[in-house]
Amino acid sequence: MKMIYTLFLFALLSSACHAFVNDFCVANLKGRDGPSGYECKPPNTVTVDDFVFSGFVAGNTSGIFNAAVTPAFVTELPGVNGLGLSAARLDLAKGGFVPVHSHTASSEIMIMVKGEITAGFITPSAAYQKTLKPGDVMVFPQGLLHFQVNSGKGKATAFLAFSNPSPGAQLLDLLLFGNNLPSELISQTTLLDYEQVKKLKARFGGRG
Amino acid sequence: MKMIYTLFLFALLSSACHAFVNDFCVANLKGRDGPSGYECKPPNTVTVDDFVFSGFVAGNTSGIFNAAVTPAFVTELPGVNGLGLSAARLDLAKGGFVPVHSHTASSEIMIMVKGEITAGFITPSAAYQKTLKPGDVMVFPQGLLHFQVNSGKGKATAFLAFSNPSPGAQLLDLLLFGNNLPSELISQTTLLDYEQVKKLKARFGGRG
Amino acid sequence: MKMIYTLFLFALLSSACHAFVNDFCVANLKGRDGPSGYECKPPNTVTVDDFVFSGFVAGNTSGIFNAAVTPAFVTELPGVNGLGLSAARLDLAKGGFVPVHSHTASSEIMIMVKGEITAGFITPSAAYQKTLKPGDVMVFPQGLLHFQVNSGKGKATAFLAFSNPSPGAQLLDLLLFGNNLPSELISQTTLLDYEQVKKLKARFGGRG
Amino acid sequence: MKMIYTLFLFALLSSACHAFVNDFCVANLKGRDGPSGYECKPPNTVTVDDFVFSGFVAGNTSGIFNAAVTPAFVTELPGVNGLGLSAARLDLAKGGFVPVHSHTASSEIMIMVKGEITAGFITPSAAYQKTLKPGDVMVFPQGLLHFQVNSGKGKATAFLAFSNPSPGAQLLDLLLFGNNLPSELISQTTLLDYEQVKKLKARFGGRG
Amino acid sequence: MKMIYTLFLFALLSSACHAFVNDFCVANLKGRDGPSGYECKPPNTVTVDDFVFSGFVAGNTSGIFNAAVTPAFVTELPGVNGLGLSAARLDLAKGGFVPVHSHTASSEIMIMVKGEITAGFITPSAAYQKTLKPGDVMVFPQGLLHFQVNSGKGKATAFLAFSNPSPGAQLLDLLLFGNNLPSELISQTTLLDYEQVKKLKARFGGRG
Amino acid sequence: MKMIYTLFLFALLSSACHAFVNDFCVANLKGRDGPSGYECKPPNTVTVDDFVFSGFVAGNTSGIFNAAVTPAFVTELPGVNGLGLSAARLDLAKGGFVPVHSHTASSEIMIMVKGEITAGFITPSAAYQKTLKPGDVMVFPQGLLHFQVNSGKGKATAFLAFSNPSPGAQLLDLLLFGNNLPSELISQTTLLDYEQVKKLKARFGGRG
Repeated sequence: MKMIYTLFLFALLSSACHAFVNDFCVANLKGRDGPSGYECKPPNTVTVDDFVFSGFVAGNTSGIFNAAVTPAFVTELPGVNGLGLSAARLDLAKGGFVPVHSHTASSEIMIMVKGEITAGFITPSAAYQKTLKPGDVMVFPQGLLHFQVNSGKGKATAFLAFSNPSPGAQLLDLLLFGNNLPSELISQTTLLDYEQVKKLKARFGGRG
Repeated sequence: MKMIYTLFLFALLSSACHAFVNDFCVANLKGRDGPSGYECKPPNTVTVDDFVFSGFVAGNTSGIFNAAVTPAFVTELPGVNGLGLSAARLDLAKGGFVPVHSHTASSEIMIMVKGEITAGFITPSAAYQKTLKPGDVMVFPQGLLHFQVNSGKGKATAFLAFSNPSPGAQLLDLLLFGNNLPSELISQTTLLDYEQVKKLKARFGGRG
Repeated sequence: MKMIYTLFLFALLSSACHAFVNDFCVANLKGRDGPSGYECKPPNTVTVDDFVFSGFVAGNTSGIFNAAVTPAFVTELPGVNGLGLSAARLDLAKGGFVPVHSHTASSEIMIMVKGEITAGFITPSAAYQKTLKPGDVMVFPQGLLHFQVNSGKGKATAFLAFSNPSPGAQLLDLLLFGNNLPSELISQTTLLDYEQVKKLKARFGGRG
Repeated sequence: MKMIYTLFLFALLSSACHAFVNDFCVANLKGRDGPSGYECKPPNTVTVDDFVFSGFVAGNTSGIFNAAVTPAFVTELPGVNGLGLSAARLDLAKGGFVPVHSHTASSEIMIMVKGEITAGFITPSAAYQKTLKPGDVMVFPQGLLHFQVNSGKGKATAFLAFSNPSPGAQLLDLLLFGNNLPSELISQTTLLDYEQVKKLKARFGGRG
Repeated sequence: MKMIYTLFLFALLSSACHAFVNDFCVANLKGRDGPSGYECKPPNTVTVDDFVFSGFVAGNTSGIFNAAVTPAFVTELPGVNGLGLSAARLDLAKGGFVPVHSHTASSEIMIMVKGEITAGFITPSAAYQKTLKPGDVMVFPQGLLHFQVNSGKGKATAFLAFSNPSPGAQLLDLLLFGNNLPSELISQTTLLDYEQVKKLKARFGGRG
Repeated sequence: MKMIYTLFLFALLSSACHAFVNDFCVANLKGRDGPSGYECKPPNTVTVDDFVFSGFVAGNTSGIFNAAVTPAFVTELPGVNGLGLSAARLDLAKGGFVPVHSHTASSEIMIMVKGEITAGFITPSAAYQKTLKPGDVMVFPQGLLHFQVNSGKGKATAFLAFSNPSPGAQLLDLLLFGNNLPSELISQTTLLDYEQVKKLKARFGGRG
């Protein structure tokens, strides 16, 4: 039967000696990274498991924000390389929240599964905020600051999708208070009080 | 206070007379459509509801495939216009399935929520298939034929995300058997038996 | 004279020590592949033959479809790497045809040269079909199923252009009947009769 | 039967009230043009003739260059709108040629059909030139100056494909000598002799 | 002479009846906006002034930040529409600064002209900061928070270029403190003290 | 404090073992080049100096055009890799000019700083020319021929920004007269007199 298959290809493609199989580009995570993504794994080493991630279980929400984000980005799900798509699971314990953050080159869609989350994003001219329940879907346009707060009485869960295989996460507090920029400089360029900056630097590990 | 706001803008932007607010482009669904999406709604008419869709409830699975796909594409969620992202909810009754189909210019991520779904996609050199349970995520690369079958003992539910605000759905049976192309032509170009074609045309509404 | 040339460059570009020649990116076919194409050959090893392919002669149409497709994709014509363009030659013997297929991320233009070809593409809402003669040009939009049938009394020839340097070819029969997916699964998700599936699997080399 | 079709859609798509058919965006040539192309014709007014152009016959080569280019760009073939692809037919009488020119945002593939054409493109560090015969294919990378000369003993014909639905044509002589820029300015910035500029301005309709 | 010009075009292009001039798409600012930019002005109404903006004079730095940003975005310079490029002039009085901000879908290059500016951008893992003098150029990658502070003894001036015709400006303080989101919510999701939020809301016009 | 930082990340991201920092892709200039740019430097080897270039000083204008272009392209400023942006400084001595040229895949913005420059670009249907003074900004759309002439009484300086990290420069004279194409061929395809071609070949180093 393999012969028929070969004949078939030969019939349709006069030059039968090349690979012809670039229907995807699974990330070779040990290979080079470039502006459009990772180099491709050789197609013959690709298996279905490159396209499947099995870790969307309830995350550990015992941290300081009572929140857990479980990513299925290119590093966990190498099949999304070059496809402009990835996903994550969000778990919020009672009182939990994801602080204000953005994704540099990615929009986000949030699909509510359990509980109640008040989410919003902010532009220079307006804030767009909504309290969401299971069955609700909300989109956060690319690059805008947004937040998610568990406003319900129990746990909350949502799934997130991103328009980038590697959306990153620019957490505002980590950006402002987790580095070694002088506190005076941060205070000046954010207009936050110096004491406020020092207080949060202590919390987020920043020096200076 | 509004005065302070205005002063602020004036201070930072010497020419204060323009809009300056193109952080998103919500679809004006009654407006013109173009290769990159719909024209934008005037920003001052945009509300948070342009970014929220509340219909991800269990779909009606009493149809012939015992399947329901509830879309949150640009026509339901106009805020995704131009963002390269959309979503859908998939419900499969026991025995239900989504027949073989593709999306012309969109990849897809499936997030399992309930039950068990056997899903796969096919390339000219291999098929990639997996039985998925809650917590599993699978990606289907752009343009490839794929399918989803409820392989469990009860209902199954999954959320889908797409890398296109308007991914469409090329259902193979509808394409082949739902139109008026002559049955002989379809039989010839698919190599399906003529009787098979006629049988399925009767089912999918095709004539000829 | 070389000195004048050098002086010229020096005059116009203060920093004269760099290459400055990225006007193209010819594929290094032995190098890495990535989401946007192959890595570039070093410019000084590029010759005009990287931009020329000389194989658009009449293909061998003695196979099962009486059809031959001769590609000038990135693997045959490495100069198209990164340029969003490639070409192919299509030869159809009397009675020959290209079965229903699609290209995952590429549109196609067909330019008729000889004979008569009936071609068409199919969307969920309509089929678009035309009988073409020399002088006719037809476009098949990205990702849609299409076919080409020699509907004339002799040989037919056409040239094809693609909006992707590596358009691939998703031949429906090869996808459905050339792999090892269980016949029951294929029958279920295509709604084709089980016997039909088994019959075509025998023809296209599929097992299971 | 239409009922079955409707039921089918209803079964698969819970919200049945929207169009769902954006598999292409045929140019509404009387509509608005934008950075990504023309606005789309309403899908229900689209016919197969929007995807077919029937004018690739031998062009009139009696003009000053003994050359004819017959375009199938978006204005002749509105179905290519937004698809990143178009085509043209090139006819060269004996001695005919296409003078040095470029396409601002488009690569080009030339497929030789008849006769002999010497073609080439030029970069700052090298010129790439080849004499082509039927069966040869050559690619001209985006934005580079190139030319085509009938170097054979009879007529020559080739087909061209472009990576842009509206590639335009920047003919060097028309650019330099067809406008009203002062001849002194052109002489200075091209380093051509003033008399040379005046002589060619007379030929190409430029004033000043 | 016009006749020669016409003959020329006729010679080269068999179909002479179409416009053929899409070398740019100047924004019709009174027209529709879409995901890829504004609709194009009719080419015959375009003048050189659509490509020129004459307002890069010293801005008024008497405002609260002692800073002035003079934009040459698509609204001031409609010729940049669809070109992925725009510019601005930055003036900082002694002690002036541009507070922490980002551009949602644009990178930025700063070219120092006068004085001394300390600039930097912040990622979750590091801050990149430099004191710049005339002759220095710095790039701020897309979507990242950055700032510019006059660290010299007199006025400072720089020119900015952006990879987007309409880069906007997400000023952190204006986002956080210029809207009507409840102060409690802002305090919670930024981890800033409630009093700090109230204090800055008073300054930036926010209510709630 | 580092512990708090780590805890923070752990709290928010369940899978803490991966890098998560692809906010930029600084060019590894010794690495592979591809259609979308250079491969990325490992993030932990990146310093602020990858984002800063300090060479925008007055260029040497003693060459044949009395012009100097100092680039800050990806080879000088590796931080622009993949960002669609770069810059250059232009110095023109009295009488100096940049001859007619184009950039294959890049638009250009010119910001006037000193003196007076007459600049323009040319399309097949019109030339767009303007005499610019400090405070003026002009955009040259992608791929079009343009020029810059010092039309003032002293030195002139401008800054340039490009929509491509590696815009190259297609200098018309260098293209036409700096290579080894036969002078007869150049004369034929440009319509320039043979003697004119020979004269300029002598000046620009071309042979043949």
